[in-house]
Amino acid sequence: MAELCYNHKVPIIPFGTGTGLEGGVTAVQGGVCFNMTRMDKILNLNTDDFYVTVEPGVTRKSLNSYLRDSGLWFPVDPGADASLCGMAATSASGTNAVRYGTMRDNVINLEVVLSDGRILNTAGKDRNFRKTSAGYNLTSLFVGSEGTLGIITKTSLRLYGVPEAMMSAVCAFPSVQAAVDSTVQILQCGIPIARIEFLDDVMVDACNKYNGLSYHTLPTLFLEFHGTESGVREQVQQTEEITQLNGGSDFTWARDQEERSKLWTARHNAWYAALALRPGCRGYATDVCVPISKLPEIVMKTKKDLLESELTGPIAGHVGDGNFHCIMVLNVDDKDEVSRVKAFTDRLARRALALNGTCTGEHGIGLGKRSLLVEEIGEVGIATMKQIKATLDPQNIMNPGKVI
Amino acid sequence: MAELCYNHKVPIIPFGTGTGLEGGVTAVQGGVCFNMTRMDKILNLNTDDFYVTVEPGVTRKSLNSYLRDSGLWFPVDPGADASLCGMAATSASGTNAVRYGTMRDNVINLEVVLSDGRILNTAGKDRNFRKTSAGYNLTSLFVGSEGTLGIITKTSLRLYGVPEAMMSAVCAFPSVQAAVDSTVQILQCGIPIARIEFLDDVMVDACNKYNGLSYHTLPTLFLEFHGTESGVREQVQQTEEITQLNGGSDFTWARDQEERSKLWTARHNAWYAALALRPGCRGYATDVCVPISKLPEIVMKTKKDLLESELTGPIAGHVGDGNFHCIMVLNVDDKDEVSRVKAFTDRLARRALALNGTCTGEHGIGLGKRSLLVEEIGEVGIATMKQIKATLDPQNIMNPGKVI
Repeated sequence: MAELCYNHKVPIIPFGTGTGLEGGVTAVQGGVCFNMTRMDKILNLNTDDFYVTVEPGVTRKSLNSYLRDSGLWFPVDPGADASLCGMAATSASGTNAVRYGTMRDNVINLEVVLSDGRILNTAGKDRNFRKTSAGYNLTSLFVGSEGTLGIITKTSLRLYGVPEAMMSAVCAFPSVQAAVDSTVQILQCGIPIARIEFLDDVMVDACNKYNGLSYHTLPTLFLEFHGTESGVREQVQQTEEITQLNGGSDFTWARDQEERSKLWTARHNAWYAALALRPGCRGYATDVCVPISKLPEIVMKTKKDLLESELTGPIAGHVGDGNFHCIMVLNVDDKDEVSRVKAFTDRLARRALALNGTCTGEHGIGLGKRSLLVEEIGEVGIATMKQIKATLDPQNIMNPGKVI
Repeated sequence: MAELCYNHKVPIIPFGTGTGLEGGVTAVQGGVCFNMTRMDKILNLNTDDFYVTVEPGVTRKSLNSYLRDSGLWFPVDPGADASLCGMAATSASGTNAVRYGTMRDNVINLEVVLSDGRILNTAGKDRNFRKTSAGYNLTSLFVGSEGTLGIITKTSLRLYGVPEAMMSAVCAFPSVQAAVDSTVQILQCGIPIARIEFLDDVMVDACNKYNGLSYHTLPTLFLEFHGTESGVREQVQQTEEITQLNGGSDFTWARDQEERSKLWTARHNAWYAALALRPGCRGYATDVCVPISKLPEIVMKTKKDLLESELTGPIAGHVGDGNFHCIMVLNVDDKDEVSRVKAFTDRLARRALALNGTCTGEHGIGLGKRSLLVEEIGEVGIATMKQIKATLDPQNIMNPGKVI
């Protein structure tokens, strides 16, 4: 099928769950959409070596359901229940990345259909080792390529043992600065925190309303600790010392699975909670990421910019990675508002770039950030990416018009 | 200068410390050797965001000396005091990879001189963030490219806080199987061990003689634990339970810096200790890596093969990654021995490939493993690597004849 498209120069757009946020599945030059949802087998679960291979129809939640009795889990968790191959294509991450890394760190091998129909196994067929220095790192080249170099048809993933103990907590702060300062200090102390998520007051309010919760409408951190029973106790103690020095509230605890699940469901529903603030409006999430020491500055400036621009953009972020989202909720029929949102998101991206950051921590470039990518990576970087694209997809049929 | 070579089609071979093990710096097609040793500045140490940038003349030991008072360190430690840019080019690792990852995991950004003299910053100039999904992962493409795609002239590295507590131990086992089984079980229990190094009886004997030590000449694990005081105590207790169930000896402890340093110096000197077994002979280190569950099988078979082939090849390995080396000590004037070594190393590599492993965990492909790379990665993989090489180095002047 891919070969047929190649021979007739017909664009190929792979479709997983359609949960991407940067227009990756739009057919800007027409073509054939390859719907992968029915290729949904889980293959080769290896509980001794901690890996599994999945087809493109398998989502992160369905994999973790499948793993439930194995003592293993896969930690990368974008907001949506995305397909794992799509997550590999996007270089996705989520709330656990501060401890467990992103898709870049957790994909071991890929099966990819190249533009001319040949099948590539990026690390060699059926290979699943912990490290290698054999030739160019093709796996990492395809992770984050957003379908522009080939179609990912199998992904081998690193799995982790379910921690002996897990504990979640919520902590409110008197100011954004205090919450973000706490985050930076927790990381600088080397506490192996599993999740550290920031929600600003507007986001907490939206989450309360959407999920029937009653957290204080203040800048807030959602935290999670993984480890042994005593290891978790120690992490919590160290963390509480830091948050209290920054004026944080006492921790609200979620110890058992049900309470923890309620807390993190609220976090994962942030997108829908934000949309519910203005019924009938549409959402767009920004996605900048900066060195963690620059977080207080950029978050404070961005809050101020939102107020001055009179825009609704509750902030939720994976602040442990220096990554945060403004969930812009806008009336797309209001041209003035649309142009204010556009100007705001451009300013935000350039603010991140000026602080040595990136215009996208985990959503990808897709359609809308191509010019920002040029600013971020520079002329030589873009030229190098274009050379790679041209040699691996000479007809420009693989998801054309995206990334570069 | 690179541009001049490009215009005259003269090969460029970058030289760091010359400590590579696969002939990476040999000028098989003549050309100009770029000696990088005097470009030895350490730039942009950032203790808030845990990164540093180094020029090609900076070695891993000189960086760690420089970092001594900062509370930070860089953990990747191949046996030699290699240059960090050379380590990036080789995708090197060492004894700490089981906890801290390899160069692939710890390089944030590279400055690379391309074949036509243009300068590429793989993640964009001066960018040092913890995650990104902005375009193709050029950093990972150049890590492990062994000088064949460009000359690495700056490397930005992720740093780590020096752990509050560190403890090292030595544990002897009645059999290779028992030592390797212990390793697999320690990892499967999720103990965040910092180092777990295997030495077979021949290697222990060589280390004793070379370093004036007196460890039992038995299959042995060298272990190291990093964490908080109580965290380390807990890791040690869990690990000792496992080793004792496998018949391991009581731990011999190295608690203070001096004792630990003596132990790990002995481990890092394994190469020289092996050579001292047969004065006047030369050494060659094999470098296979397999999924950890396959380690007992491959190590046992390899020991048997060494005996049957009547070869000297003490084994030392980063078994926590599934990676081990036979340090072949051979009389290069004895043609029969040379051919037996060649046949043995080929059998070993193919044994690893048959167990879904790799022919090189951390030494690279260089000159000698190019045909093994084809077997490992397959025809389509090699073709893809060749396409990338041809497009980024159209004149084939960057370290020609290596990798592919």
